[in-house]
Amino acid sequence: MTDDPPNPALLPAGLSDVLPPEAEREAMLVEVLAETFARHGYERVKPPLLEFEDSLLAGSGAAVAEQTFRLMDPVSHRMMGLRADTTPQVARIAATRLARVPRPLRLSYAGQVLRVQGTQLAPARQLPQAGVELIGPESAEADAEVAAVAAEALAAVGIVDASLDITLPRLAPALLDEAGVQGEARRKLARALDRKDAAAVAEHAARAGGAALLLPALLAAAGPADAALAVLQVEALPPAARAIADHAAAVVAAIRARAPALRITLDPLEFRGLQYHTGVAFTIFGAGRTGELARGGRYLSGEEPATGMTLYPDAVLRAVPAAAPRMRVFLPQGADAGQATALRARGLATVAQLAASDTAQSLRCTHVMDSTGAPRPVEE
Amino acid sequence: MTDDPPNPALLPAGLSDVLPPEAEREAMLVEVLAETFARHGYERVKPPLLEFEDSLLAGSGAAVAEQTFRLMDPVSHRMMGLRADTTPQVARIAATRLARVPRPLRLSYAGQVLRVQGTQLAPARQLPQAGVELIGPESAEADAEVAAVAAEALAAVGIVDASLDITLPRLAPALLDEAGVQGEARRKLARALDRKDAAAVAEHAARAGGAALLLPALLAAAGPADAALAVLQVEALPPAARAIADHAAAVVAAIRARAPALRITLDPLEFRGLQYHTGVAFTIFGAGRTGELARGGRYLSGEEPATGMTLYPDAVLRAVPAAAPRMRVFLPQGADAGQATALRARGLATVAQLAASDTAQSLRCTHVMDSTGAPRPVEE
Repeated sequence: MTDDPPNPALLPAGLSDVLPPEAEREAMLVEVLAETFARHGYERVKPPLLEFEDSLLAGSGAAVAEQTFRLMDPVSHRMMGLRADTTPQVARIAATRLARVPRPLRLSYAGQVLRVQGTQLAPARQLPQAGVELIGPESAEADAEVAAVAAEALAAVGIVDASLDITLPRLAPALLDEAGVQGEARRKLARALDRKDAAAVAEHAARAGGAALLLPALLAAAGPADAALAVLQVEALPPAARAIADHAAAVVAAIRARAPALRITLDPLEFRGLQYHTGVAFTIFGAGRTGELARGGRYLSGEEPATGMTLYPDAVLRAVPAAAPRMRVFLPQGADAGQATALRARGLATVAQLAASDTAQSLRCTHVMDSTGAPRPVEE
Repeated sequence: MTDDPPNPALLPAGLSDVLPPEAEREAMLVEVLAETFARHGYERVKPPLLEFEDSLLAGSGAAVAEQTFRLMDPVSHRMMGLRADTTPQVARIAATRLARVPRPLRLSYAGQVLRVQGTQLAPARQLPQAGVELIGPESAEADAEVAAVAAEALAAVGIVDASLDITLPRLAPALLDEAGVQGEARRKLARALDRKDAAAVAEHAARAGGAALLLPALLAAAGPADAALAVLQVEALPPAARAIADHAAAVVAAIRARAPALRITLDPLEFRGLQYHTGVAFTIFGAGRTGELARGGRYLSGEEPATGMTLYPDAVLRAVPAAAPRMRVFLPQGADAGQATALRARGLATVAQLAASDTAQSLRCTHVMDSTGAPRPVEE
């Protein structure tokens, strides 16, 4: 729709209007994602946008505490938060209302989250989220299911060239624990790993010795999953790290069984993002520069093992090719109502002429309904 | 889904979790409403949940100012509000970003609103809304279109026995102005009208004299639209009131032309609800005790004439008969992936066995996929 440029004084930074046709496209896309989740047995829940901060910021919610808007509830005089993430709410529902439903429990959600401040890379302070949570099982099969379902949902909206990046956020800490690296030395190594500074990692690892000596090879192993897994396989990992690596190999194998065509990369030492993951962590990227389309991984839902994926419909919308717009058919005053109903039943929009001054052009119609009820293209 | 009773300490009063299967039903229902709007040429916008209070509470937003949660924006240090109604945001979009799009401008929306306090009759503090706004025209045709589109959207989700109640919130003030009734006398008459206290209306009207003498007959006229319009027709209304009555008659005729089967009532002196209506106001009721399903009417969108309808999906959900739940098909480990894909393509849910301990019963499945890929009912 032709629109005037936004006035920056009009809306708070990071909050924006989604206009036609994007708003409809985003909503339809969210429902396709949700339908994919439902067809894999994930049942939808809708927690409120506001709830008491103690439950909102419990568990994995602690990771977004600083990003959560807080409000006083005038009814209870307790503090409430506007959700900055949906997963803690799903965990609350699973642990309370759905405590007696047998596990595995498959839940899904779709809605908005709000954040106190945007970042330079991600300025938006209101974000749509749509996701799945699989609560109960600890198996690699469960991790694989949520990753594969997320990839299938993206494929259902037209993103077929996504790639899944797996990270093992507990692997580097396991090696540093084993090597007894603490304090300043650990901070320096963590910073070097975070910057992927191979020279610095090598230097600090040599100084730390022991299991830390494995770090340079594992840092270099990041890339296509099979090659990275091969490196993890041959290295002499201590038991805690070996368990993490074996789980990763099982997850990759189980995803391959479900989604043979999905491109999978593995970055063993990366620990980007939210700090609450207790096992594998996932990021799905679109092709090119579309950025992150989804994130997820293994976490604790209350006291239960859980794994899940959150898709970002705003990013997905940017990555999906624009669909053909809905055909807009001008309906002259006095046009046959039955014929117009038939056009709408085909999914077309009929736009009624309310006054003689309304024209196909002024109503931005692409077609006009003729006397036979057929849509005839507007002549240029 | 079997669930434990909610713990009242868990969530703030008036805020609640929507659980399976209601959350999915509500979302699907909203998309059916939105699709109906789209097929009549209403284009979707998605304003943010939060915006500066000056724009949120302008125009018709003033009516919900006391019900609006306010927050300080840490970025701009200006006050923001959490929307308690969507119409003021659509008015802002129409007046700014879409100022140059020719009128009539047809916009729609679907999303959540939040309110500081619930009422005894309507305790919810988070409400879904889905609606249409028709901005530009002042004609009865425009009022009729939004009412008919709302009724059609309700019919599309299975509510075919709705009735539309039309009120004329400016009619009583026009008569009182004409009769020169002011101050305490006006307040008393307004209170008597609000309580539909015929005896008190007759008493105060007799004292006020002039055009106020018409009030008892108009109060008694409330009922089926044709009879009420006949009363409005025969009474000797002063010019301002006559214009309101004639517009109402034209609106009813135009709705009848679009929706011949819709039951229409007219309550000429009622002025329930939001105070910003400048012409006809609408309420749609479901059959029986389902309460209000939609509200709307004529208002000012910024400085432009406008008319619109807001549907309440939570109330609509309660009024719609429950659909058959989605078939849940247990997928044994090692089941054929292609067969499972075929079941999902039919809209069924396949629920994967992740461990030997998962059974069709524990996964609450109604069916099991057999070796031919067919869903076989679970034996009781």
